[in-house]
Amino acid sequence: MNIPNSKNPRVVIIGGGFAGIAISKKLRNKNVQVVLIDKHNYHTFQPLLYQVATGGLEAGSIAYPIRKVIQEYKDFYFRLTTVKEIDTENQKIISEIGDLHYDYLVIATGSKTNYFGNKEIERNSMSMKTIPQSLNIRSLILENFEQAVLIKDETERNALINFVLVGGGPTGVELAGALAEMKRAILQKDYPDLDIDKMQINLIQSSDRILNTMSEKSSIAAEKFLLDLGVKIWKNVRVTNYDGRIISTSTDLTFDSATVIWTAGVQGAKINGLDSKSLVEKADRILVNQYNQVKGYENIFAIGDICSMEIEKYPKGHPMMAQPAIQQGKLLGENLIKLIHKKTMKAFEYNDKGSMATIGRNLAVVDLPHYHFSGIFAWFVWMFVHLFSLIGFKNKAVVFLNWVYNYIWFDREGRLIIRPFKKKSFITFTSDEV
Amino acid sequence: MNIPNSKNPRVVIIGGGFAGIAISKKLRNKNVQVVLIDKHNYHTFQPLLYQVATGGLEAGSIAYPIRKVIQEYKDFYFRLTTVKEIDTENQKIISEIGDLHYDYLVIATGSKTNYFGNKEIERNSMSMKTIPQSLNIRSLILENFEQAVLIKDETERNALINFVLVGGGPTGVELAGALAEMKRAILQKDYPDLDIDKMQINLIQSSDRILNTMSEKSSIAAEKFLLDLGVKIWKNVRVTNYDGRIISTSTDLTFDSATVIWTAGVQGAKINGLDSKSLVEKADRILVNQYNQVKGYENIFAIGDICSMEIEKYPKGHPMMAQPAIQQGKLLGENLIKLIHKKTMKAFEYNDKGSMATIGRNLAVVDLPHYHFSGIFAWFVWMFVHLFSLIGFKNKAVVFLNWVYNYIWFDREGRLIIRPFKKKSFITFTSDEV
Repeated sequence: MNIPNSKNPRVVIIGGGFAGIAISKKLRNKNVQVVLIDKHNYHTFQPLLYQVATGGLEAGSIAYPIRKVIQEYKDFYFRLTTVKEIDTENQKIISEIGDLHYDYLVIATGSKTNYFGNKEIERNSMSMKTIPQSLNIRSLILENFEQAVLIKDETERNALINFVLVGGGPTGVELAGALAEMKRAILQKDYPDLDIDKMQINLIQSSDRILNTMSEKSSIAAEKFLLDLGVKIWKNVRVTNYDGRIISTSTDLTFDSATVIWTAGVQGAKINGLDSKSLVEKADRILVNQYNQVKGYENIFAIGDICSMEIEKYPKGHPMMAQPAIQQGKLLGENLIKLIHKKTMKAFEYNDKGSMATIGRNLAVVDLPHYHFSGIFAWFVWMFVHLFSLIGFKNKAVVFLNWVYNYIWFDREGRLIIRPFKKKSFITFTSDEV
Repeated sequence: MNIPNSKNPRVVIIGGGFAGIAISKKLRNKNVQVVLIDKHNYHTFQPLLYQVATGGLEAGSIAYPIRKVIQEYKDFYFRLTTVKEIDTENQKIISEIGDLHYDYLVIATGSKTNYFGNKEIERNSMSMKTIPQSLNIRSLILENFEQAVLIKDETERNALINFVLVGGGPTGVELAGALAEMKRAILQKDYPDLDIDKMQINLIQSSDRILNTMSEKSSIAAEKFLLDLGVKIWKNVRVTNYDGRIISTSTDLTFDSATVIWTAGVQGAKINGLDSKSLVEKADRILVNQYNQVKGYENIFAIGDICSMEIEKYPKGHPMMAQPAIQQGKLLGENLIKLIHKKTMKAFEYNDKGSMATIGRNLAVVDLPHYHFSGIFAWFVWMFVHLFSLIGFKNKAVVFLNWVYNYIWFDREGRLIIRPFKKKSFITFTSDEV
């Protein structure tokens, strides 16, 4: 990996997400050599991916170059690659661009979409954890409409503009709301020769309420907002399969759709080489103690979505979202320095600042530890919290400008079909009448 | 193509570039049915592609959804497809999504990169005519640097950061200048472990001056600006081949480079089915009369880069740039209405507003018909002309905001590796020392 030797101990951080960036900032110029590894050269602000997917924002405004974050840091290196395995015996990581020895290893690989082992669903549905995936969803939505205007067969046409979102968590809810607004504000005007009322947005939730990690009050409010926007909500329904056209469920309910977006579950983006005893089954998260130290290892740590710190209040680990990741990253940064100087580390305590979700213009729900509210004020709170969480002044300014423009003009100009990867077509056309 | 029958005569426009959009606007609600066809669902503002390629702007800010342009137009349709052939016998076009009858056909397919028949250069070099191509160039530049930091072999490393631009026209010159600024402002800071002085920008021009379509004064000024920025200019040198590593030329000069960007020539993006007598050999442009009527056809027209109106002042047709395309599009819009109402059409006269090129911050050259100037004032003129030529208020605002930010901070935050198409790696890595 061509990292120079240094008198400083080497900390290797795998992953430049919220957790990885947070600890990097804490380790700035602290007489440690840091090597930050990510498979992208940018940090992704995941909470706004759904707006990239629905054309409200450009990818560039929610991505930030990792090398710019660490530009001024001494003895600090970034490497663009994927880690294949950890060799704990020899204290090294094995990556696509070679091996690297570590004195301290920090695993911050985050989470990935969980299809619960169903390969056919995985093959046929879209997921939305990265920017390329979001751009693919954006393109697919628009390509479906471009194809729908060509089709005379009503069943085929309706399948193309029937969008099924599996999973009633924040991602599914925010995406459903954004699609509903896209339908009225954009698609109706862009495709006058289509009967827009045939466009369906179906949100499928396996439990008895959407946003079931939030307060009941927020679930009820969000559900009302979505219904008003024309989203169909199906509760207590579990999707059992999707062959690319037909979605079958645990009930006798089925859907005929060309587009399934799967937000029904996440699991740790696990890495090979760790002792199986240190892993949580199914969830693929890594068991850590209150110092984020991986069970069974002295110098290996895990932070953010990938780790599971099983304490009384959170028996299955902290919620897999930005706040625990950021807080764990910051604390571990300080703790590593303590550890290196043989001082005692501080145990992690999660400061729950609450959670929120936006459904559409003037519509959001916010849960504070002791107070829940929804509507336009919640929406403003949501906007400003997200705006100020973005890295970089320019991203803040561009996102703000886009939001103001979209708000005033009910518009989303990012409706461009620019695919990061090649398109697979839903149907191919033969010669048509003149 | 599923276009409803209409009492209005049907005008089919192939291409949504400057010419195609200009005529579309003129045909708005004029009792003609219009079908606008493009292979992208957006209009591309090509003059700023080089800024997308160098991370100064996001793709979305120089692209505009075609369906939004025609949103309010009556009896006006957009179709996303590629036209394979024109069947002039039966007055129909044959496309990937079926055939379509036309009463009047307008060919506005623009131009594509001209490799003068050298397949090996075509296979190994990058071209910059579309947004996906620009994003690929951006990614390749950054990927080269990410790989360069890993390589110990100096020859290999230098080849990765040696950028060869073939063609000293506006595109080559603007790209060379942008790369030179990227070198100092970004790459030097982002890759401290690389010796940035080893990064080369070579601009190769076959004739005896760069910008040879502009005034001699401007050529000299642009050349000085580029040299000051550290660009190496090679004049009277023709590239004869490029195998992916070695560029051979008409002289004994050779270059060892992983990245060749080819801007040395354009040719018409021709379409099959027209009588060969109506085509210009080599250039692949379509011969038209002063009404942009294709030689030998009553109801087929060609506008913009694709057409060649050979008049005394422009024996080889008008320059292949935005202005002639826009002016021809506007006039043909009016002429078609005249033709339909059996009125006499107006002959095209090109109003040359001059031409300009930017080299870097505060550096540009402007040729007005009777006056040439360069430097900071020219640069401001260039900026505002381009800003106001962009379609859409939001694009103007976002581009302006980006320019102000980049100007103040000497920055380009769009340095993100997000490929529209899959990456082909320059070298693959085996295990490396620890």
